[in-house]
Amino acid sequence: MLIVQKYGGTSVGDLDRIENVANRIAKARDGGDDLVVVVSAMSGETNKLIAFANHFTSNPAKKEMDMLLSSGERVTASLLSIALQSMGYESIAMSGRQAGIITDDTHTYARIESIDPSAMQDAIKKGKIIIVAGFQGINKDGSVTTLGRGGSDLSAVALAGALDADQCEIYSDVDGIYTTDPRIEPKAKKLDTISYDEMLELSSLGAKVLQNRSVELAKKLNVKLFAKSSFSDNEGTLITKESNNMEEVLVSGVVLDKNQARVTLRGVSDRPGIAAEIFTLLAKENINVDMIIQNMGTDGSTNLGFTVPQSEHENAKVLMASFDHDIEGMDFDNKVCKVSVVGVGMKSHAGVAATAFTVLADNNINIQMISTSEIKVSMVIDEKYGELAIRTLHEAYELDK
Amino acid sequence: MLIVQKYGGTSVGDLDRIENVANRIAKARDGGDDLVVVVSAMSGETNKLIAFANHFTSNPAKKEMDMLLSSGERVTASLLSIALQSMGYESIAMSGRQAGIITDDTHTYARIESIDPSAMQDAIKKGKIIIVAGFQGINKDGSVTTLGRGGSDLSAVALAGALDADQCEIYSDVDGIYTTDPRIEPKAKKLDTISYDEMLELSSLGAKVLQNRSVELAKKLNVKLFAKSSFSDNEGTLITKESNNMEEVLVSGVVLDKNQARVTLRGVSDRPGIAAEIFTLLAKENINVDMIIQNMGTDGSTNLGFTVPQSEHENAKVLMASFDHDIEGMDFDNKVCKVSVVGVGMKSHAGVAATAFTVLADNNINIQMISTSEIKVSMVIDEKYGELAIRTLHEAYELDK
Repeated sequence: MLIVQKYGGTSVGDLDRIENVANRIAKARDGGDDLVVVVSAMSGETNKLIAFANHFTSNPAKKEMDMLLSSGERVTASLLSIALQSMGYESIAMSGRQAGIITDDTHTYARIESIDPSAMQDAIKKGKIIIVAGFQGINKDGSVTTLGRGGSDLSAVALAGALDADQCEIYSDVDGIYTTDPRIEPKAKKLDTISYDEMLELSSLGAKVLQNRSVELAKKLNVKLFAKSSFSDNEGTLITKESNNMEEVLVSGVVLDKNQARVTLRGVSDRPGIAAEIFTLLAKENINVDMIIQNMGTDGSTNLGFTVPQSEHENAKVLMASFDHDIEGMDFDNKVCKVSVVGVGMKSHAGVAATAFTVLADNNINIQMISTSEIKVSMVIDEKYGELAIRTLHEAYELDK
Repeated sequence: MLIVQKYGGTSVGDLDRIENVANRIAKARDGGDDLVVVVSAMSGETNKLIAFANHFTSNPAKKEMDMLLSSGERVTASLLSIALQSMGYESIAMSGRQAGIITDDTHTYARIESIDPSAMQDAIKKGKIIIVAGFQGINKDGSVTTLGRGGSDLSAVALAGALDADQCEIYSDVDGIYTTDPRIEPKAKKLDTISYDEMLELSSLGAKVLQNRSVELAKKLNVKLFAKSSFSDNEGTLITKESNNMEEVLVSGVVLDKNQARVTLRGVSDRPGIAAEIFTLLAKENINVDMIIQNMGTDGSTNLGFTVPQSEHENAKVLMASFDHDIEGMDFDNKVCKVSVVGVGMKSHAGVAATAFTVLADNNINIQMISTSEIKVSMVIDEKYGELAIRTLHEAYELDK
């Protein structure tokens, strides 16, 4: 098998942990697999370099930041390769450039445009384990670029796609994807398998194991993703394409997102384009709107509700004031949270949403907003009921079974 | 003027010192100069990375070490560029690769093969200050290589040559080249000018301001070199090609090298090739031989003397034992030192060597070995007279005037 592995900053956080990772790689190699390993910077390194830059300015040029920050992953890649060689394994460290990763020009948040896997393929043919500095590539001019948060995951998935690898294993300090946050519901169970789409809903809903961009890319390139822990030998969770088999499971997980504030605009005038104006203004101020719900009001005007991160609550308030001549009343609440139920089974089974509403009603939890997608039901409720809602929903869908 | 500047590890040792360097660059820029600045890693960084690698093995692969160590210079280059930009200057950080430096394949001690200055020239045309990560390049396969000790000096001189720069300024914590070590002779004077050849003799004799490789390259490319301090505004010393003017000065400097041990082989048999055997064996064991002197003996056999670093004295003893059937007697002394007098004026003026011998004799200092070149006289004497010899010679040649 050709396996791409990725180890995050915590997994390579110090020299002993790099040695631990080298041992894991050696074990896989002894099992006969070909390996391409993508690494992050040692944890803390990137923040140290950012602090160095901020000594001079709070707003350093993105091009220089890319050259600065990309050095952290190169250090880890070199050290891990040295560790493997010291154990008698043949390995080679490569920068993003040497691995053939070409990106666009968007410094600090570049998109991978193409990968030339020939150098990696040559090294694999020679029996070498390849260690790639994650998070980075070069643009067409040859400048170093970085891929933004979760960039090393993205490197791993893209390399797995370009190499047509059998699977891509993302190692962190968490051993997989759970039916819900185990800190809220101790009965939470690790999932063996989950679909790309469910994972996308879960991660955008606050499960932090895998970044959305990587899951989206894995889906696009049809890369079999495993979320695993570098500190245990547990099986991990396979993220893959949807199978008929999966639909037998109604719900894969329930998620709580406490970083939500609700804005409700009552009696918005029916002037065409008013909604567009509102959300354009919010976008201009970089306020990330999550849920948006519009209902017809009784008198022809509409009611418009949306949620923003709690940190943007006050900013949203200020911005909305400029619309007060178009709006009858406004209501702001930053003491809300969002609970979501995710599962591909919803596509083929009715009643999943109804169960959620019933369960919350039985517990006297008032639902302020509802939003649904093909495989997700999200509900905004009073913040103080968040954990209770999660536990009750987890039980109702028998996720602990 | 187009100026290449190079700042060593001490000059960029912490964030405040990087800021200090940025201020110096800004001042030169305000004066109207175009600038290409080469930087070393922040002092301590390279040693830290070497210690990291040695955690895994005392003998890491050179290819991986190059990728590891090259990251330090990249960090400094990025930070210095950020510092300049924060002061309102336009600058761009470049790795060795981006600056166009192509080397051979000798990892950790690569030779620069060619430089494509087009990217730098473009940036200069756009009015940008260029900050280049020193000490590094890439080979033809695209692997990162480093240039060995003093590599950043070498980067600077090579870039100055490729860009046809007006001058190349090497900044360190020393403000130029002195007639002798000021710690030995407080009357030592800073030289305004010195020739490449004199500088080569001085640096191979123990003056540590500039590495020989850089001076040799500067001579080959005819680059005007300045040795300056980054902590003062003193003029520094210009190292340039020899002029008639220079020959008026008899002697430029006197140097003491205490790291010397003497080996004398008496009555070496006249078997052809015996000297070649001796020095081949020493070379095989990586023992660096400095002076070599051979004299005819009275009976047709020869006397052979040479010096080695004091740390190799015992090894040399052991190796020479294997020749005892070919040699009448051996004499080892690690309590010696070498004093040298350097000056292009010797070429055209007789009596410089005679003066040295006379001065030492007047002070009852016995000369054990003598070796001369066109612009240098070196003498091996008892270690305890080293400082006295330097002070007396300094005075005899009126270097304090």
